[in-house]
Amino acid sequence: MTVGTMVNAYIPGAGNLSPEDEARIARRTRLLGPAYRLFYQTPVHFIRGEGVWLYDVAGNAYLDCYNNVASLGHCHPHVVAATARQSALYASHTRYLHDSILDYAERLLATFPSAVSQMMFTCTGSEANDLALRVAFAHTGGQGVIVTENAYHGVTLATSSLSPSLGAGVPLGPNVRTIPSPDPTHLSGDPGLAFAALVQRAIDDLTRHGITPAALLVDTIFSSDGVFADPKGFLAPAVATIRAAGGLFIADEVQPGFARTGEAMWGFQRHGLVPDMVSMGKPMGNGYPIAGLALQPHVIANFGENARYFNTFGGNAVAAATAMAVLDVIETEGLQANAAEVGAYFRDGLQSLTHPSLGPLRAAGLFLGQDIVTEGQPDAAKAALIVNRLRQNHILISATGPKGHVLKIRPPLVFTKAHVDHFLQGLTKALN
Amino acid sequence: MTVGTMVNAYIPGAGNLSPEDEARIARRTRLLGPAYRLFYQTPVHFIRGEGVWLYDVAGNAYLDCYNNVASLGHCHPHVVAATARQSALYASHTRYLHDSILDYAERLLATFPSAVSQMMFTCTGSEANDLALRVAFAHTGGQGVIVTENAYHGVTLATSSLSPSLGAGVPLGPNVRTIPSPDPTHLSGDPGLAFAALVQRAIDDLTRHGITPAALLVDTIFSSDGVFADPKGFLAPAVATIRAAGGLFIADEVQPGFARTGEAMWGFQRHGLVPDMVSMGKPMGNGYPIAGLALQPHVIANFGENARYFNTFGGNAVAAATAMAVLDVIETEGLQANAAEVGAYFRDGLQSLTHPSLGPLRAAGLFLGQDIVTEGQPDAAKAALIVNRLRQNHILISATGPKGHVLKIRPPLVFTKAHVDHFLQGLTKALN
Repeated sequence: MTVGTMVNAYIPGAGNLSPEDEARIARRTRLLGPAYRLFYQTPVHFIRGEGVWLYDVAGNAYLDCYNNVASLGHCHPHVVAATARQSALYASHTRYLHDSILDYAERLLATFPSAVSQMMFTCTGSEANDLALRVAFAHTGGQGVIVTENAYHGVTLATSSLSPSLGAGVPLGPNVRTIPSPDPTHLSGDPGLAFAALVQRAIDDLTRHGITPAALLVDTIFSSDGVFADPKGFLAPAVATIRAAGGLFIADEVQPGFARTGEAMWGFQRHGLVPDMVSMGKPMGNGYPIAGLALQPHVIANFGENARYFNTFGGNAVAAATAMAVLDVIETEGLQANAAEVGAYFRDGLQSLTHPSLGPLRAAGLFLGQDIVTEGQPDAAKAALIVNRLRQNHILISATGPKGHVLKIRPPLVFTKAHVDHFLQGLTKALN
Repeated sequence: MTVGTMVNAYIPGAGNLSPEDEARIARRTRLLGPAYRLFYQTPVHFIRGEGVWLYDVAGNAYLDCYNNVASLGHCHPHVVAATARQSALYASHTRYLHDSILDYAERLLATFPSAVSQMMFTCTGSEANDLALRVAFAHTGGQGVIVTENAYHGVTLATSSLSPSLGAGVPLGPNVRTIPSPDPTHLSGDPGLAFAALVQRAIDDLTRHGITPAALLVDTIFSSDGVFADPKGFLAPAVATIRAAGGLFIADEVQPGFARTGEAMWGFQRHGLVPDMVSMGKPMGNGYPIAGLALQPHVIANFGENARYFNTFGGNAVAAATAMAVLDVIETEGLQANAAEVGAYFRDGLQSLTHPSLGPLRAAGLFLGQDIVTEGQPDAAKAALIVNRLRQNHILISATGPKGHVLKIRPPLVFTKAHVDHFLQGLTKALN
């Protein structure tokens, strides 16, 4: 990817903007730092969200098949009410006692294997992964971290240094090793063993440089690598490999977590694993800034003795009440089952299109990665064209992967089959 | 400070707890990672906040003279309403166009010197300081950072590595140099020149180790160093010194910012400075997780070209609406003037007590640091006793400083003279 840019970024001058949006972008360029990027050739200006829809200033409704924060649908009334109620009552922090954080931690931890039994709360997924690194370094005494070659794990100094998807302008750390994505078409033999061999090679290289391995950190659906969910269980040998070298396995569930994969609450559960730490974020508060780290107690014992961790807003009473309301909705609306059912329908629907530009499809629940190809070869330009045509037709997705040719489709979990049909019609139109 | 502990931390077994709170703490120990700390010998369990008061489960009202997040008073109705209204309408992120972030950035930037004219938004002060480091490293090509010897700048891997107040269990980075606090009683000659000489010595040491200086980063009221506000202007020579060495000056306004010092919106303004970057957080959303970094555009030009920065929740529409409501209240309720007036009354009141345990007092607006001494020497144990006696009498403060003997008094900006009188009565009782 070009330095400093990203897939589906707005390139100044390229779009077909209204004078109002031209002025808005000029104002943005003046008031915000230049590290911000907008989506689309012609950026969109939204003013309202409800369920699976976002509305622009003219009242046009856009079908949201992309935003994985408002996972329960935009502005879900049960969650909005919880935020409003608790904000008016008490909002303070974790150095006073409050039951909300304990009630929430208990309910959340019940969704994990029993060994993963303690929570730390942060505000963002970046902070959760950053804390996971601090804990892993303290526990192992090492600093070597292994990630996939187009991984994204955050924007702090430490997490950006192990997020190669941010591009060549963001340096990787000297303690970081990257391994190829677990693309089954590129791994020879058993995918699990082949992926584990890549991890071993990275361990050997770290060791050769005098760096003690601390962790293997992966997004368990490999979102920015291009969406690799299958075959189920392929991650297990890699996890055994890092543990044999004394390192920890950190599952980054910021994207696959909270029922999106349909079969389970967490992406790692597809692989029959028990991680040492699990980071989570984005959909945790359906838009309210809350994130966290679930851990096996023994990995944080040393850190907890030597260091205190206070995150001013992390785990505050409003965050806990809001996140609790999110769990309510996932349960009462049966969103995990819906993600499984509508996700399968979505997968079948995409596979039935049989257009020559549609290459391999990978999916788990409502997280789908659809390759766009020309004569079988990755075609990022065509993927970008499709993403922008869909936007013109008021359907929101984006693209991902190291080559930028994978359509990234991640609708809210309240998506219905009718919404899938709407998307498939839009995609068909965009392809033709 | 002892490894892993902190001033005013609850020590398990030491307090006089109700069976309910014993059970609550046991549950906390089970469900939360051991890096959490509670306040007080006997922790407090609050369930409601309103204005300057926090209420425990028995309905007791505690006068809050400590929490600098709910700076407008707990659960301020104007801010709560803004959060609720925008949460129900639209909450999405900065890759779509939205006016709220621009309206807010424009109004906020108008409080800065004109050269500081661009904003980046994060969720926490830690993230803001962490981003400041990334920007400083990119701009200067160096990584050397100078901080004071009991500084606190955050809990990310990078910011904790330059936060010596976290204790010996949290390692400082090899690129970090600490300098003594600007305690005028310890600096010989002109305090500004003496402090600048300490900065120069740190620059020389960095350079001697082959590390290029990137930044001088200070909390402009030196909160955790013991509160050093005067003499006005003393920071200016240190800033000139770091700039002469090619480094940037980053003002950490997470604690002094947003009108607390009374005379100005920002702590650095007491010193007649124009920082290269200004980090802010805590009171920015009166409890909603929002923080940010104001910058001179030239320092982020290089970073912005090479790197994109996307913080999922940072600068979202709810954060912007909430933070805008905070600025409304600071203006309409005249809180900067109130901080100046009530702060002066507070300072005078403390000075009039003339108790032998009360040593030097340092203050700016509603940020006060009162030394506790025995025969003129710092007495941390007595400070802890006072803090805990005040808590028994339903008044909240804490202690700070490298020796833990400085009472840290930071009431909400809506504090009145009657509240000051209440505090002074409570302190007198605690002292006797």
